[in-house]
Amino acid sequence: MRPSGRAPDEMRAITIEPHFTRHAEGSVLIGFGDTRVLVTASIEERIPPWLRGKGEGWVTAEYGMLPRATHTRGQREAAKGKQSGRTQEIQRLIGRSLRAVTDLKALGERQITLDCDVLQADGGTRTAAISGAWVALRLATNKLLAAGQLEKDPILTQVAAVSCGIYQGNPVLDLDYIEDSGADADANFVLLADGKIAEAQATAEGATYDEEGLLRLLRLARIGCTRIFDAQLKAVG
Amino acid sequence: MRPSGRAPDEMRAITIEPHFTRHAEGSVLIGFGDTRVLVTASIEERIPPWLRGKGEGWVTAEYGMLPRATHTRGQREAAKGKQSGRTQEIQRLIGRSLRAVTDLKALGERQITLDCDVLQADGGTRTAAISGAWVALRLATNKLLAAGQLEKDPILTQVAAVSCGIYQGNPVLDLDYIEDSGADADANFVLLADGKIAEAQATAEGATYDEEGLLRLLRLARIGCTRIFDAQLKAVG
Amino acid sequence: MRPSGRAPDEMRAITIEPHFTRHAEGSVLIGFGDTRVLVTASIEERIPPWLRGKGEGWVTAEYGMLPRATHTRGQREAAKGKQSGRTQEIQRLIGRSLRAVTDLKALGERQITLDCDVLQADGGTRTAAISGAWVALRLATNKLLAAGQLEKDPILTQVAAVSCGIYQGNPVLDLDYIEDSGADADANFVLLADGKIAEAQATAEGATYDEEGLLRLLRLARIGCTRIFDAQLKAVG
Amino acid sequence: MRPSGRAPDEMRAITIEPHFTRHAEGSVLIGFGDTRVLVTASIEERIPPWLRGKGEGWVTAEYGMLPRATHTRGQREAAKGKQSGRTQEIQRLIGRSLRAVTDLKALGERQITLDCDVLQADGGTRTAAISGAWVALRLATNKLLAAGQLEKDPILTQVAAVSCGIYQGNPVLDLDYIEDSGADADANFVLLADGKIAEAQATAEGATYDEEGLLRLLRLARIGCTRIFDAQLKAVG
Amino acid sequence: MRPSGRAPDEMRAITIEPHFTRHAEGSVLIGFGDTRVLVTASIEERIPPWLRGKGEGWVTAEYGMLPRATHTRGQREAAKGKQSGRTQEIQRLIGRSLRAVTDLKALGERQITLDCDVLQADGGTRTAAISGAWVALRLATNKLLAAGQLEKDPILTQVAAVSCGIYQGNPVLDLDYIEDSGADADANFVLLADGKIAEAQATAEGATYDEEGLLRLLRLARIGCTRIFDAQLKAVG
Amino acid sequence: MRPSGRAPDEMRAITIEPHFTRHAEGSVLIGFGDTRVLVTASIEERIPPWLRGKGEGWVTAEYGMLPRATHTRGQREAAKGKQSGRTQEIQRLIGRSLRAVTDLKALGERQITLDCDVLQADGGTRTAAISGAWVALRLATNKLLAAGQLEKDPILTQVAAVSCGIYQGNPVLDLDYIEDSGADADANFVLLADGKIAEAQATAEGATYDEEGLLRLLRLARIGCTRIFDAQLKAVG
Repeated sequence: MRPSGRAPDEMRAITIEPHFTRHAEGSVLIGFGDTRVLVTASIEERIPPWLRGKGEGWVTAEYGMLPRATHTRGQREAAKGKQSGRTQEIQRLIGRSLRAVTDLKALGERQITLDCDVLQADGGTRTAAISGAWVALRLATNKLLAAGQLEKDPILTQVAAVSCGIYQGNPVLDLDYIEDSGADADANFVLLADGKIAEAQATAEGATYDEEGLLRLLRLARIGCTRIFDAQLKAVG
Repeated sequence: MRPSGRAPDEMRAITIEPHFTRHAEGSVLIGFGDTRVLVTASIEERIPPWLRGKGEGWVTAEYGMLPRATHTRGQREAAKGKQSGRTQEIQRLIGRSLRAVTDLKALGERQITLDCDVLQADGGTRTAAISGAWVALRLATNKLLAAGQLEKDPILTQVAAVSCGIYQGNPVLDLDYIEDSGADADANFVLLADGKIAEAQATAEGATYDEEGLLRLLRLARIGCTRIFDAQLKAVG
Repeated sequence: MRPSGRAPDEMRAITIEPHFTRHAEGSVLIGFGDTRVLVTASIEERIPPWLRGKGEGWVTAEYGMLPRATHTRGQREAAKGKQSGRTQEIQRLIGRSLRAVTDLKALGERQITLDCDVLQADGGTRTAAISGAWVALRLATNKLLAAGQLEKDPILTQVAAVSCGIYQGNPVLDLDYIEDSGADADANFVLLADGKIAEAQATAEGATYDEEGLLRLLRLARIGCTRIFDAQLKAVG
Repeated sequence: MRPSGRAPDEMRAITIEPHFTRHAEGSVLIGFGDTRVLVTASIEERIPPWLRGKGEGWVTAEYGMLPRATHTRGQREAAKGKQSGRTQEIQRLIGRSLRAVTDLKALGERQITLDCDVLQADGGTRTAAISGAWVALRLATNKLLAAGQLEKDPILTQVAAVSCGIYQGNPVLDLDYIEDSGADADANFVLLADGKIAEAQATAEGATYDEEGLLRLLRLARIGCTRIFDAQLKAVG
Repeated sequence: MRPSGRAPDEMRAITIEPHFTRHAEGSVLIGFGDTRVLVTASIEERIPPWLRGKGEGWVTAEYGMLPRATHTRGQREAAKGKQSGRTQEIQRLIGRSLRAVTDLKALGERQITLDCDVLQADGGTRTAAISGAWVALRLATNKLLAAGQLEKDPILTQVAAVSCGIYQGNPVLDLDYIEDSGADADANFVLLADGKIAEAQATAEGATYDEEGLLRLLRLARIGCTRIFDAQLKAVG
Repeated sequence: MRPSGRAPDEMRAITIEPHFTRHAEGSVLIGFGDTRVLVTASIEERIPPWLRGKGEGWVTAEYGMLPRATHTRGQREAAKGKQSGRTQEIQRLIGRSLRAVTDLKALGERQITLDCDVLQADGGTRTAAISGAWVALRLATNKLLAAGQLEKDPILTQVAAVSCGIYQGNPVLDLDYIEDSGADADANFVLLADGKIAEAQATAEGATYDEEGLLRLLRLARIGCTRIFDAQLKAVG
């Protein structure tokens, strides 16, 4: 029995509120249950120095958590003067995931930055961030297409992410904070709408796992991502 | 004529959504027009080292702006590795303003941190932050009172803040971004519900001003803060 | 009765020693009683990146306090690896104050940096710094004028600053450290020789104040700045 | 055909030189082909603050790369003043991997730090680091056991890691730098001697992959880790 | 012929103004010609953690240069966020030099920090700093002795420092900035009043030197330090 | 009697293993007894900004110590976020020493960086680093000469360094860690093969020394460097 009473393959409510803020080219507030992440996509007509002259663009991400997004207050990273290893690991993952569905040549010499800021955390912040970032990226790219600034749509397909884990011996989908804290194994899958895998990360916490366990987690992830893909499409109209 | 069509002494719509997030002891999303600031109040049963043994508490604030809260994306302070002078100046002002209405002895040996994060900026982020911080502080203190952890209410009165300025020669209340960018003088007033002034800051930008100008700005501020005091009371029930 | 025996509207002795160091284009050691600040003005034939191509110059300031300028030794900011919020707030104030009397177009594409370093502190370091910075700026600009590098004098008028406060219920001028530590309210005014106000900042410390209190402090500031304007003129000959 | 002429399931030469330096409690120079990592295990009789009083120990890792370990010189992280996101991600992975085979209660209130410094890089530095770290940890723990400082061996089993990837359409084992730079997918597996998985990370670079691809990479990893387990045992005698 | 017209073994004017600032336990403004360094000695009744329980004290130094102490403005180290290698090298040298004449046991469990801030630079700032630091240390220790806080004088003898160099083929004493910039070799000697050497540092710049050259520089240093010892004694009365 | 049983003028075993790593243009593992330093020389076809347009090159050095090179583990400088004063002092010394034997004009507009990383420390790491750096620089320069990229050999002569000290009253050569920790005086000499001195640094630790002491240390250094010059020549063939 899961603490939330959910079935093992049951996602939390997915809520996607597009256009949550007004300045960004794309903006969305995504919720996986009580986890809420604000994602904005910012288009800039400049690219990182090492890309200059290659005729292609870049998609990158930054991640942050408000100090009191969590049960107890964490130190503000800007005040501490550096981003934690966890933060950097997550923002690298988000960036890679979105680049996996972007044709950087088609994007042209511009950069899109996905800022993912966690307003409230209850497990799965990185997977909600990736799933919301696709919506923000889609909205921002739609603007470029509508303005005639792109010849071809650079978004190749949808990308979504979800966490799975082994909780009290059972594989479960979309862990909330209570499950996450007590899970034996913890995995994050980034999947594409065409069924391909962009990223799989599975970590043993208390107990290690085997090949069969890994596959069962992957199958749960497919169920979850199907639900997210639907919600994404609904959100972008 | 103001760009927004408002009268000189007209505030933008004030929106206060209490309990916006669930982990913090107090939480509010406050809006002054398109400016939206999320404020959380976190109670911690520890005090700064220099206060130990004095039998009193502390109220402090931190301020941040999401990178794309603004028209063009700003660099994330956590990534830059330091908070700007502007950020530090604002968070010092917020902390002083809330301490002006708090009986630190009555609070006992605990610290309340007010995290003010700007989700969307359109002028007046520091004044919205102060005004919202009072609500978050009130909600958090109510919890302590309800739980019997305080003998006496440490909140002495309400505090609110509003910006005023001289725009195209005329004193106006609650400047939005367009007015703020072009104002000749720019002032922030922090006022208490009993009519006292906690803080007055008036800066000449393009043109300097005189005593009469300063007083006219202060009078506008009184009009604005009256509106904010009402909205605060409605929000905390 | 003030601890120093001064009348409420009495400034401490103002001492201005121009040309205190020899390398800077302008240099002054200014004293307000025991507060002593060394200010240098450095002219550089380059401007900040965001000003390029606009045909105007920039005036900026940096502020520091020697570790043992104070009663007990403070940590050296260079060793700590960052400037405090207080330092940044002060240097932003000094820069704004001096720009309020400078015609940046007339200055041409060059930058003048005012380095204000407190050798000894006894209250009012920021106001002494602003008042001394005007002298250093005037001396440096005189060199440019004498060398024919400017067509027109970019200094529009004099600027000076002084602190006022409510000490034991009475408004007093130019607080020293003892008064400053115990004041109920603490204000800094930056005034121009033509009577205009460049900046007014009044903060309630123990007790809040009202409109009448604010005006009384401003009137004291006018008395003090008149004395400083005289001393500045005498110093620059 | 692989650039090195190796068969798809062929590891590079594994070299393990124990006791490479003399001060550390455990020390090893491990080579996977031209990749060479110096790992030391340092025992300290103190634990991180958050573990105090729990009666258990901690195993952690730090990772670094000498500036000219690579084909072109990289900036020294100590000179830059911060560790890159990649460095932090890797050292977190190494720490987790070694903790997966350590009984922290049995270790007692002490910390073992595994310093992994890459002297020469040719792909697979993190997997060589993990594999070598087990040897250093084993040697250090042996010293504690020999000195009678432990009642029970805290090392539960062996852990090793290897990279796999899809290179020009084919799954291959233990990628060198040339393969790594051009791989379509890149995976790292951390496996235990009992067949369990401690960590699986598979990232699509150019092309995404599917479930079958993931399993083929995992099978290659099992082949590689079997070879590493043998070499580890030989090294620790 | 030296640019200043001085004889090869001629020091610049040595000026020592004790009690230059009033808060520090010891304070002095020392000048070697146009080089002027403000040194304060601060006594604190605490010692570094690694000295605790050993029954002895510590003498340490910090060094800084005001941004416009030099011909062209240098960046403020507090603003840059770190002290340069040169700064750190100099403050380590000053600390060692003063400890060479201090009986740390006799000082008891307290720390004396010597802050050396260069107000104006014209070569030889580190040697002026060391020579002035002795005066500040002597004045501060006199206070402790007068207050009966020390049983025994911890100052064993005088210490002074001077630079020498080979300029246009000739050994010269106490280089000013012009000579320093063009010298073939540059040496700093820290000597005790009893004739012993605390520190000798000789660096070839353009041309290397030999044993005879080293000895000739040392002999010049003896001449210079004799002059400084006299000036120190006169200053402390 | 020295702890190691060596004669006062006896060096430890000098081992020089050229080509220790393969990517760098020059690379060497140098040992002075148990002290082992890996030095790489990296050639880059760019120069520091302040050298541009002068038609000459630059030789610089960086120094680091692996955290467990020492008896007890030290904090990793990259993790701490800054290099210690000691590190910076040493790398400045190494750079100066190598530039003393390099004709920067003949090198052309390129930079050679000498990375000196201490794998194991037992006293004398900076002198081993300098002595090894010459070998790495020689090897790298040989490559440029062989490739016809230089018209003239920029290496003017050999440079080597050794430490000397007064240990229990006796001048001794090449101090190991035990001697270094207990020495009364500690000196480092950087000598050229033609007999000239590039750098002499002698510091009194417990006891000060006199002119005769300084000369005796220098004579020991000459003996040691002669041995190092031989080993260098053998290593570069």
